[in-house]
Amino acid sequence: MKEITEIKGGVTAAKGFLAAHTAAGIKYKDRDDMALLFSERPAAAAGTFTQNVVKAAPVLWDRRIVEEGKAARAVVINAGIANACTGKEGMDYCERTAGCAASTLQIPQDSVLVASTGVIGMQLPMERIEQGIRAMAPGLARGREAENKAARAIMTTDTREKEAAVTFTVGGTSVTVGGMCKGSGMIHPNMCTMLSFVTTDLCISQELLQEALRGSVAKTYNMISVDGDTSTNDTCLLLANGMAGNEKITEKNEAYETFVEALTRVNRTLAKMMAGDGEGATALFEVKVVHAKTEEDAAVLARSVISSNLTKAAIFGHDANWGRILCALGYAGPQFDPERVDLTLESANGRLMILRQGVAADYSEEEASRILSADSVTAVCDMNMGEAEAAAWGCDLTYDYVKINADYRS
Amino acid sequence: MKEITEIKGGVTAAKGFLAAHTAAGIKYKDRDDMALLFSERPAAAAGTFTQNVVKAAPVLWDRRIVEEGKAARAVVINAGIANACTGKEGMDYCERTAGCAASTLQIPQDSVLVASTGVIGMQLPMERIEQGIRAMAPGLARGREAENKAARAIMTTDTREKEAAVTFTVGGTSVTVGGMCKGSGMIHPNMCTMLSFVTTDLCISQELLQEALRGSVAKTYNMISVDGDTSTNDTCLLLANGMAGNEKITEKNEAYETFVEALTRVNRTLAKMMAGDGEGATALFEVKVVHAKTEEDAAVLARSVISSNLTKAAIFGHDANWGRILCALGYAGPQFDPERVDLTLESANGRLMILRQGVAADYSEEEASRILSADSVTAVCDMNMGEAEAAAWGCDLTYDYVKINADYRS
Repeated sequence: MKEITEIKGGVTAAKGFLAAHTAAGIKYKDRDDMALLFSERPAAAAGTFTQNVVKAAPVLWDRRIVEEGKAARAVVINAGIANACTGKEGMDYCERTAGCAASTLQIPQDSVLVASTGVIGMQLPMERIEQGIRAMAPGLARGREAENKAARAIMTTDTREKEAAVTFTVGGTSVTVGGMCKGSGMIHPNMCTMLSFVTTDLCISQELLQEALRGSVAKTYNMISVDGDTSTNDTCLLLANGMAGNEKITEKNEAYETFVEALTRVNRTLAKMMAGDGEGATALFEVKVVHAKTEEDAAVLARSVISSNLTKAAIFGHDANWGRILCALGYAGPQFDPERVDLTLESANGRLMILRQGVAADYSEEEASRILSADSVTAVCDMNMGEAEAAAWGCDLTYDYVKINADYRS
Repeated sequence: MKEITEIKGGVTAAKGFLAAHTAAGIKYKDRDDMALLFSERPAAAAGTFTQNVVKAAPVLWDRRIVEEGKAARAVVINAGIANACTGKEGMDYCERTAGCAASTLQIPQDSVLVASTGVIGMQLPMERIEQGIRAMAPGLARGREAENKAARAIMTTDTREKEAAVTFTVGGTSVTVGGMCKGSGMIHPNMCTMLSFVTTDLCISQELLQEALRGSVAKTYNMISVDGDTSTNDTCLLLANGMAGNEKITEKNEAYETFVEALTRVNRTLAKMMAGDGEGATALFEVKVVHAKTEEDAAVLARSVISSNLTKAAIFGHDANWGRILCALGYAGPQFDPERVDLTLESANGRLMILRQGVAADYSEEEASRILSADSVTAVCDMNMGEAEAAAWGCDLTYDYVKINADYRS
């Protein structure tokens, strides 16, 4: 098997990537709220963006650069204001942000990507953004401190930073993939967004990089749900600067497959961190659908269960409420025979079959409750129909979710 | 205009319909938990049923009778146990229930419809069901007391009974449509289901009755959402016994149109009652989408907003969080130009434009909050694209929703 090793690291784990952070005072006080990523060499850039009809200005800016296949040198990120629903002014601000980074770092303006997260409908305070960029540039650095502080700077109401990295070998050359992300729903009134930034020193064509990202995102970030609300700003950027020195990947060979697996490992780790840090969550809730007819069916079924408010509330209550899980499978869309479904609950506290062939297994509610009281729980839904499978990740629905989202904007 | 008059009444408001109730001790203690409806004459029966792949036994039983165009005489309803995920045994119990009602009331077995709501996965205690039927038969009666007690008997964790009735005239003949329903989500661990029973003394063919019901349900019950969880038992039954004495409706003439409007009036009232009595709800939340391109678009957009957890939490917090509403419109599916959307909030406390052409209007947050603090609030989303419109109804997302659904089954 391809060997992929997890390492401690984030967005600067791969060669030639640097990060910086600053407290620009955009909306938060007394904390960092801007981050800057920089690649020493031009990097192939891939991206996936929100499917929401309402797209924030930075999404439109980045999408154009990615679609035109432009090489990227830098990413400017701010937390506090999303630059969404901001009209032409918002687009101008993307250009000014990129322009400021370009002149400060002496790189082309169209090699600068931008990303924002925060309140919808407010305009960015451009002077602070520009001051922030100029303040960050001299501090660009590699290593745990720089990348970790960048990961913290982009948080909104996330409770912890989210980073992951792996290494693997391509034709004897060591390659690294690392990333950071933020997001726990469209959190805090008007706050929103999943933002994910992954870097690699792999040498690969932009077309294959984009294809690898698209496939990986479908199995990772697109399989998590905190509240079913798709933000206006969701963005995943992947930069590959080729500094590992491998022979450039231009076809779907073994090296490409290994990279895809490494990338998916990083993305899956980051995605699960987001789900587990969902607003108000006390537990990561994983749903595996196995033996479904098609992969698409498996994905739709898994997503339906992790999105079910009733199921999520039951997880919070440590209640092995299989009726709700079966119900959520039932309204997902794909056809199946309820009388063939097996359901098993798993966690660090144990493993228990709850439902066998559609009928309640003879299980102890107490034991089930103990399994569900772990901070990461898995429901395995065996459809007994075919060979396809999928996993999805969410979290429980808690009082704190309501509290976070009902509190009036301050 | 066709004159349709609201009257006080429920499921026995129309001629020839009787109701009864009893405490059968199926699961609840010290309260009625069974109801019986009876038509003095064979009634044309129409029905719409859950789209969930997992269908409860009573749904399968009723659907067969409706699809075969059988005339109905009685409906046996129980609360406490849903008879869902109960396999062949569950189907046998439907037959035994119908059989008992048939022999007790001296009517054909296939003229008896059944409906259940409650815990999934438990078998019905058949002796109590049969005792209940025999206890209810002698008490069948018309009028407010009988119909109101029946409406209360079918409740699960509903906080209030739900009834509505109207009268109108067809060719000089007075016709009545009345109904009752229950439901506030898939409430209480494993509790579920919207059940709705509407009766009319109109004389109409079964085919047109079914068509009228299908169209009406799409605009009423199918436009409400408490938590997005489609139950295994959802059922709406409509019985027409012809006792008003009008000329039988066999084509889509003016009388048919008037009936459809009257039926939709009753269904809409009942649907809104369910949405307003959603689990833990403090407010009915109505979303009107106007000037959409197509009716389908309008319906999808309206449903997306009332289903958004974030928007629902904001309503609970009396927060005019237009970013969330715009966001929920954006991920609904239909294409639109965010920069043409107007958004207005309305309630008994006033009316306020929040968003004009996609940009925040100059409004007072305090005034907006006052409007949102009413017990019924409406958001009007003007897409400024076409002539189609739709309305959907939901409720706010509250601590009590989480409490009700996270509490361990007792």
